[in-house]
Amino acid sequence: MKTDKQNRLKPRLPRGFADRDAAEIAATERMLAKIREVYERYGFEPLETPFVEYTDALGKFLPDQDRPNEGVFSFKDEDEQWLSLRYDLTAPLARHVAEHFDALPKPFRSYRAGFVFRNEKPGPGRFRQFMQFDADTVGASSPAADAEMCMMMADVMEAVGIKRGDYVIKVNSRKVLDGVMEAAEIPPEKRVAVLRSIDKADRLGLDGVTRLLGEGRKDESGDYTKGVGLTRVQINSLVNFTGAPDVPHMSSRGIGDAATIANIEDAVRSSILGKEGACELQQISSLVDAANYADRVRIDPSVVRGLEYYTGPVFEAELTFKVPNEKGQPVVFGSVGGGGRYDGLVGRFRGEDVPATGFSIGVSRLFSALKAVKSPIVTGAHEHGPVVVLVLDRERVADYQRMASLLREAGVKAEMYLGNAGMKAQMKYADKRGAPLVIIQGGDEKAKGEVQIKDLVEGARQASGIASHEDYKAARPAQFAVPEAKLVEAVKEALARPPR
Amino acid sequence: MKTDKQNRLKPRLPRGFADRDAAEIAATERMLAKIREVYERYGFEPLETPFVEYTDALGKFLPDQDRPNEGVFSFKDEDEQWLSLRYDLTAPLARHVAEHFDALPKPFRSYRAGFVFRNEKPGPGRFRQFMQFDADTVGASSPAADAEMCMMMADVMEAVGIKRGDYVIKVNSRKVLDGVMEAAEIPPEKRVAVLRSIDKADRLGLDGVTRLLGEGRKDESGDYTKGVGLTRVQINSLVNFTGAPDVPHMSSRGIGDAATIANIEDAVRSSILGKEGACELQQISSLVDAANYADRVRIDPSVVRGLEYYTGPVFEAELTFKVPNEKGQPVVFGSVGGGGRYDGLVGRFRGEDVPATGFSIGVSRLFSALKAVKSPIVTGAHEHGPVVVLVLDRERVADYQRMASLLREAGVKAEMYLGNAGMKAQMKYADKRGAPLVIIQGGDEKAKGEVQIKDLVEGARQASGIASHEDYKAARPAQFAVPEAKLVEAVKEALARPPR
Repeated sequence: MKTDKQNRLKPRLPRGFADRDAAEIAATERMLAKIREVYERYGFEPLETPFVEYTDALGKFLPDQDRPNEGVFSFKDEDEQWLSLRYDLTAPLARHVAEHFDALPKPFRSYRAGFVFRNEKPGPGRFRQFMQFDADTVGASSPAADAEMCMMMADVMEAVGIKRGDYVIKVNSRKVLDGVMEAAEIPPEKRVAVLRSIDKADRLGLDGVTRLLGEGRKDESGDYTKGVGLTRVQINSLVNFTGAPDVPHMSSRGIGDAATIANIEDAVRSSILGKEGACELQQISSLVDAANYADRVRIDPSVVRGLEYYTGPVFEAELTFKVPNEKGQPVVFGSVGGGGRYDGLVGRFRGEDVPATGFSIGVSRLFSALKAVKSPIVTGAHEHGPVVVLVLDRERVADYQRMASLLREAGVKAEMYLGNAGMKAQMKYADKRGAPLVIIQGGDEKAKGEVQIKDLVEGARQASGIASHEDYKAARPAQFAVPEAKLVEAVKEALARPPR
Repeated sequence: MKTDKQNRLKPRLPRGFADRDAAEIAATERMLAKIREVYERYGFEPLETPFVEYTDALGKFLPDQDRPNEGVFSFKDEDEQWLSLRYDLTAPLARHVAEHFDALPKPFRSYRAGFVFRNEKPGPGRFRQFMQFDADTVGASSPAADAEMCMMMADVMEAVGIKRGDYVIKVNSRKVLDGVMEAAEIPPEKRVAVLRSIDKADRLGLDGVTRLLGEGRKDESGDYTKGVGLTRVQINSLVNFTGAPDVPHMSSRGIGDAATIANIEDAVRSSILGKEGACELQQISSLVDAANYADRVRIDPSVVRGLEYYTGPVFEAELTFKVPNEKGQPVVFGSVGGGGRYDGLVGRFRGEDVPATGFSIGVSRLFSALKAVKSPIVTGAHEHGPVVVLVLDRERVADYQRMASLLREAGVKAEMYLGNAGMKAQMKYADKRGAPLVIIQGGDEKAKGEVQIKDLVEGARQASGIASHEDYKAARPAQFAVPEAKLVEAVKEALARPPR
């Protein structure tokens, strides 16, 4: 084992990966429980898939090559087949549904929370392992299934403490976007690149997107990104349709869904696909309206979504309140999740399309949002630590162990101090652990058949100064002795005292 | 996209990986909650590390090579460093503690449940992704910390429903085993191979272990495993000490810890390390006795544990009841978890040993055990499915959607049927989903301002035949009409009726 200083191993994590401590785990768990509750109320049931899949099942080979996409973590099986860590939760669901197609109830409603992995350059807030929480309905082609997804996303926002008015679920359609591109005579092979470029409008603004769609764009660092090579007219018809956040007046979004849909019908002109998309958006709008969600779910041509596999409605959950960015300027918080219809994904395994729609919540993004709005889910009181039984006489460890054991049997969180330090350091340890009480029994107490109970919460309060005569009168003893036989009873009583 | 039959993608998982359905997820979650409760009662707090670590931090390079061990899934970082999926939860904990050493309270008590990955040949019950649930105390060198681990394992067994007497926590010591090997003059470089061979006694029996320790062993398939090359005398002194399950009379285990420890002291002869180990086992035995766990935790020289990094006490939780094996013969269920002291693991990062002890529960193994004893945790009633609102008139989807929405607002799990099938198939769907009720509103009901509520549970009961006149009188209507305005109220009432 190498232990000399130069050769010593450095304890560190690869960039883009992180540990989570007790407080973050508990707060995230509270948030996930709220989301789960909403999903279950809509009749969705849990399904879990493993972290590893065949690379081909994830659709993650590089185009025309037998090598996995660099964006996924991949390794070879013992029989030389490529495996990858899942990149999202949708591709594994599609594999599961195709594998068990005949046995599943259809439509099949399921949900899952889990970590996904991206082999990409990490950055501030960009991780290589992060959690998504998805819900999907497979086997329902009706726009009612998409409408339900949007309403469920709205319910999730409110369940975790985002107030109505602080969020909006925006809906658009890939068919409509295809229709607009068809009307602008943009050839099919360029369309994915076009959508990816427009999807960057949030970050790059109108000017950046215009360059990406045209001749290309040089970023601040001097790196050049090749453009899609559209004509001025083509670019204009696109950006006039989708708009960009830095030029809010320029977009086909009208006041209310009816006006927006009229603009959309106009923009897709004679495209059959575009008209079909507009009609589906109309149906979603009516359903949302009938269920009283019109104030939270709206048709919005700016939604694009970067993924290739969407085939119909696409949606995004956006938080509309402002938070300071790195430079301290207030900016809209933005997207915390999204999804859409992907009728071809299960079909890759079956040779025929299987209708499917779903969405994904970005758990860490939503968690940051809850911190920003100070939701009680994340600011909630941390549970107190264990009662700590101090070790004053090393020969009597078995006695102290028994005290801790008795407390635990009575359902009290308790531990005996297990280190080698003296009394003062033991008190410091108890404090660091958030212990409400410590139990002390030295030789004197033992001789009297007593234990001392020290109340650390009250002790801290008294140490910080008692403000008034009333406080003085109300003060409870910060340390008191009880007969050893009454230890459990006295501890339970002390823990039950209301905090002051 | 390749969709012709020959080129169609096969939906399948790599071997050794599995999906988990709703019932298994819920049952496992109930089991984990019980374990978590015990850990927290002992003052342990959650800590989570990511799935990916630097291969060197996991200690998983092949000896004297810059290539990761074949047993771990590994891939290269963009800057050509080796990363691996975690192999267990102990090495990542050691990295975390070393990284944050000064900030952590010491002793540091933490727990974590999570999947780990082994790049090994999968087999029946042997997975390449499986869950462990660990608890560890870092910074405590006292045998009291080891004793606490053993008592906590016992409490875990009972918390999940394994009855007292159906399990035993067995304790041994690496120092003792080292002492016995020292006394038998087995050179240090052979000792890891010796321990690995003895650890296979459960599977191979006395004869198999004897061969592995000697000249080698040929298995049923004809594959040959090289032996350690010990002498007859060396082999005898080892197997007489540890024993083997197929020759229960041959072992240094006595009746009661005192007798066993006397045998151990005898076996380690003059080895200093061996005597130290025996003394620690003596302390653990006393502490366990004082806390009234002597009937559940016992010193047992047969425990070895295969991992290299243990430095002191080692322990194993064994279930003693019998279950049928693949051939239908009754065999002892065996180990569901174990652990031990690993004072060198954090030290790899720090240049000095840091005392640490912990154990790991094999979640799937324990889950199988709970199935075998029919623990209510796994057999527990499955929650009922959603109330399903049928779609009789496609033009009125918005109305049906609203009914589902109203039910959900009242906290009732509900969904509108989203497929394209007719009434009969919709009823079948509701049945498959475990729906307690379906809501029906065709044209006639609409005209009367009514909805029909059909009780599927009662319906099934009546269909299966009513046995007696009393039953007939007690029968509740399996289908009834209510005014549409009373839908929510009537559904809540119907759901509240006690099951018959």
